Amino acid sequence: MAELKNLNVALLGFGNVGRALGELLLRKAGTLRDEYGLVVRVVGISTGRHGHAINPAGIPVKAALEAVRSGQPLTPLHHGAPVADTAGFLAATSADLLFETSPTSITDGQPSLSYITAALTKGMHVVTANKGPVAFALRTLRMLAEQKGVGFMHEATVMGGAPVMSLVRESMPAATIRRVRGIFNSTTNYILSSMEQDNVTFEQALHAAQEIGIAETDPTLDIDGWDSAVKTAIVANVFMGASLTPQDVNPVGIRDLALETVQQRAGEGKRIRLICEAVRQPDGTVRASVAPQALPQSDALAQIVGRNNVIDFETDTLHRITLIEHSAGPDTTAYGMFADMLNILRGRHHTAVH
Amino acid sequence: MAELKNLNVALLGFGNVGRALGELLLRKAGTLRDEYGLVVRVVGISTGRHGHAINPAGIPVKAALEAVRSGQPLTPLHHGAPVADTAGFLAATSADLLFETSPTSITDGQPSLSYITAALTKGMHVVTANKGPVAFALRTLRMLAEQKGVGFMHEATVMGGAPVMSLVRESMPAATIRRVRGIFNSTTNYILSSMEQDNVTFEQALHAAQEIGIAETDPTLDIDGWDSAVKTAIVANVFMGASLTPQDVNPVGIRDLALETVQQRAGEGKRIRLICEAVRQPDGTVRASVAPQALPQSDALAQIVGRNNVIDFETDTLHRITLIEHSAGPDTTAYGMFADMLNILRGRHHTAVH
Repeated sequence: MAELKNLNVALLGFGNVGRALGELLLRKAGTLRDEYGLVVRVVGISTGRHGHAINPAGIPVKAALEAVRSGQPLTPLHHGAPVADTAGFLAATSADLLFETSPTSITDGQPSLSYITAALTKGMHVVTANKGPVAFALRTLRMLAEQKGVGFMHEATVMGGAPVMSLVRESMPAATIRRVRGIFNSTTNYILSSMEQDNVTFEQALHAAQEIGIAETDPTLDIDGWDSAVKTAIVANVFMGASLTPQDVNPVGIRDLALETVQQRAGEGKRIRLICEAVRQPDGTVRASVAPQALPQSDALAQIVGRNNVIDFETDTLHRITLIEHSAGPDTTAYGMFADMLNILRGRHHTAVH
Repeated sequence: MAELKNLNVALLGFGNVGRALGELLLRKAGTLRDEYGLVVRVVGISTGRHGHAINPAGIPVKAALEAVRSGQPLTPLHHGAPVADTAGFLAATSADLLFETSPTSITDGQPSLSYITAALTKGMHVVTANKGPVAFALRTLRMLAEQKGVGFMHEATVMGGAPVMSLVRESMPAATIRRVRGIFNSTTNYILSSMEQDNVTFEQALHAAQEIGIAETDPTLDIDGWDSAVKTAIVANVFMGASLTPQDVNPVGIRDLALETVQQRAGEGKRIRLICEAVRQPDGTVRASVAPQALPQSDALAQIVGRNNVIDFETDTLHRITLIEHSAGPDTTAYGMFADMLNILRGRHHTAVH
């Protein structure tokens, strides 16, 4: 093994995903060193409620995890001049790569979009799990990254438990994707499975999902299809070259779905699923939609129950393939970001031949 | 767009897959030029029954396809000194990359293994669809390729209709694969589906499969599990670092499966599938098997009907993901080889960070 390489990273956002990423970096330190000759050093962590910490010599991640878990601030781990806010954090950090998981609105991608822009402008690689910036500003962010000669990756934005971005980027070069269908929202799929299998109404299923922490207190974005619409816009834009906003997708949710309808379709051997779809039209444009659809049980998408997600590709070269995730969570999302990091270091953001 | 790059390729084997690859190169010439700045020139084609053709200035692929389809030799397309055999063809060709699809025994990987060795030794990139050489000599071939600074890829060796090699290589860096399960043989899955759904015996189902060209006249390698065993050895060796031969996998086939058993399991809500499996043991070794298993219908693998194939990964980072192919054929196998070509040109055979 040649000399070890050092990579300095900063974590912007230290919630469920950020902390899972911190744990993964600790757990995989040996593998990174032995298999990739790589030492990853966390030199900055920025949070909303626990302050900021910067240390060019490396922040002890274990101590940071413990501090946040016990409700303590990160400031004792900070070295140097005080940092006032996230912009100050980004200006002060010496990281080569930013992991961006800050709380962000999916209706305009802010404030994440401005943080990513600042980091790329500074010449940092950026890996984000935030959907908004990718849905609204993919082209701009890609151009900026290319201009600066850095990587911008977002594997975890669609299906945090399965690698869809790298699958298309690496496994389907020069293919034309004609149609993508998927189930991209766990909450609604859980509710639909529950209405069907447990014979409970939408309200009952939603309530149960909230009880066990699958649905949020305000489940609007999920059940009205907006989370799915944002992901569908990403899929259409990244995989099919479209320029759609989530508003263009104009989602239909599952709020008004009657138990009677679900059970009637079940009696006909069909299952209702909230299907995300992007289809290339004969005129070359891409039409995207999110709506409940009654699928025959023979359809691979109808087989997806509970919180599982799925994506189904129709292309001109592989015809049809389907990828299913079975157990997504903050830890799989963190792994998507971790894989993005390694893939940037392996030059996978360069897709041209040479 | 910068200046166009030229890539000279040779096709060793011009059967169903080789010809589909020729057609794909013709169909994608515009995409390669416009999106990758690449011009791929076929400078050699070697066949068993239609002779050999070499032309450093480029062989007209359309004419070669027409010649072979109408039973004519390729020799009128040949320029230069006559070529006596495949070894002579490999010595004489000026190709940068060899597409290897020659008829090869899966019991020892020959003669493909010696052709690949010769091409790599000569400093050519090699892309093969032949399972034998990968099952028997992965490590040696990889080392030779690395020594010579060229790529050796074999996407199409397992599941010719879905990208499993690049999925692991690119999408799961630094992950530990704990278990792989799959259905890797279309003929046996078709027979099993048929016994179950059409209530016909093994012999009847096999006969029907032979009638429509799904099963070969001598179906031994498929129904006795050897085709599955070779693929399982590849999966265990490539994904889990094992050193297993197909003999180590010691497959159990479906020849002796009674219709009564299939229907009895179906009555219990189960489906019998020929399951390929590789599992990491507590002591670090990998145990691989091929055998009929009765799976509950809730298992994603039980849902795979007809000629479809599937692979299912359990890892320490993504937990579980499943990839299904729906319509594999010579054209999808050809695309796997085509993607390998582009991925070698994109440096994807280099998996280290830099």
